[in-house]
Amino acid sequence: MLTLYYAPATCALASHLALEFAGADYQAVRLDFKAQQQRSPEYLAVNPKGRVPALVTERGVLTETPALLLYIAQTFPQAGLAPLDDPFALARVNEFNSYLCATVHVAHAHKGRGYRWVDDEAAIEAMKKKVAQNMTDCFALIESRMLAGPWVLGERFSICDLYLFTLSTWLPGDGVDPGQFAKVTALRERLQQESAVRKVLALH
Amino acid sequence: MLTLYYAPATCALASHLALEFAGADYQAVRLDFKAQQQRSPEYLAVNPKGRVPALVTERGVLTETPALLLYIAQTFPQAGLAPLDDPFALARVNEFNSYLCATVHVAHAHKGRGYRWVDDEAAIEAMKKKVAQNMTDCFALIESRMLAGPWVLGERFSICDLYLFTLSTWLPGDGVDPGQFAKVTALRERLQQESAVRKVLALH
Repeated sequence: MLTLYYAPATCALASHLALEFAGADYQAVRLDFKAQQQRSPEYLAVNPKGRVPALVTERGVLTETPALLLYIAQTFPQAGLAPLDDPFALARVNEFNSYLCATVHVAHAHKGRGYRWVDDEAAIEAMKKKVAQNMTDCFALIESRMLAGPWVLGERFSICDLYLFTLSTWLPGDGVDPGQFAKVTALRERLQQESAVRKVLALH
Repeated sequence: MLTLYYAPATCALASHLALEFAGADYQAVRLDFKAQQQRSPEYLAVNPKGRVPALVTERGVLTETPALLLYIAQTFPQAGLAPLDDPFALARVNEFNSYLCATVHVAHAHKGRGYRWVDDEAAIEAMKKKVAQNMTDCFALIESRMLAGPWVLGERFSICDLYLFTLSTWLPGDGVDPGQFAKVTALRERLQQESAVRKVLALH
């Protein structure tokens, strides 16, 4: 059985959703970030990065959302969560997920995790001011160039949609109205009607 | 034929090296970042993100280093650049490449590209002060936990090594002595002896 470590309001939601859509046999273990459980010796033994998600498999622990999403898609191919037989289409998946991981997530992190990149308190505050604009720019690019519609890859649902859904839940807190992005909003609304999504969101 | 857009001293080196190791039929087009060629209308038509690398294929343009690396490995399987038949081992590849892309590259970018995340000049300067420590922390984790040795995956050479080699070339400029990381240094030295690496480095 797989074990997913997660915390609410983090990108671990994407992997949690993927496990649910895959019909995987898994358990989800919730960490309390306010109590700094991700820094406990017990958790650092699981994931020395002190972050979520972490997925414990029978062959070892995996981290990093793009890696977990593709691993889940490959391990449960019957769920059809990625175009596994087409290297170009799979590269589109990896391109999209890399952008979310390295650009969109990072833009968001400058609101609450600025201390990662600077020690100066005034600079940490200054970083927060640009988050809404950066997230708007990212989602404008996604809306106009990267989301084929109705799903990210077009007619085919994939792990990209679960990852985009996850990061889009951060928009209101970042001061960005998701409603300005019509295709993103439609994707969010379709997914919110899924029982798997409701089940997982209730835990987050 | 594939066309790779690159600029010197960027992460495009990793994809350039992968194409060379794959024995691909490709051309490399160099952009002059000082002349802002990455912001030209011609290039933005290729890659609206205005960044490198971008790989033009017969089915469309691909961006984001982790996506390009896996695409090259999948398109030229005879080169053996990734464990394509083992989902867990491939997840290790994706985990490593995601960490380089979203954490290590981002840590480095706060030295020269701080304007991405803040408008305040003093904050941009403040960010630069933490780059050496962050890069040291990242490479200490890579050295101790992520680089099995002699290659990232152990005995098996892969795209992870080309990506790690690329980002390790930034260490001296970031104020970090690569020599303190014995396994990383040994990996760098082995690769620098390869004719494919010398050929590509001469163009960068």
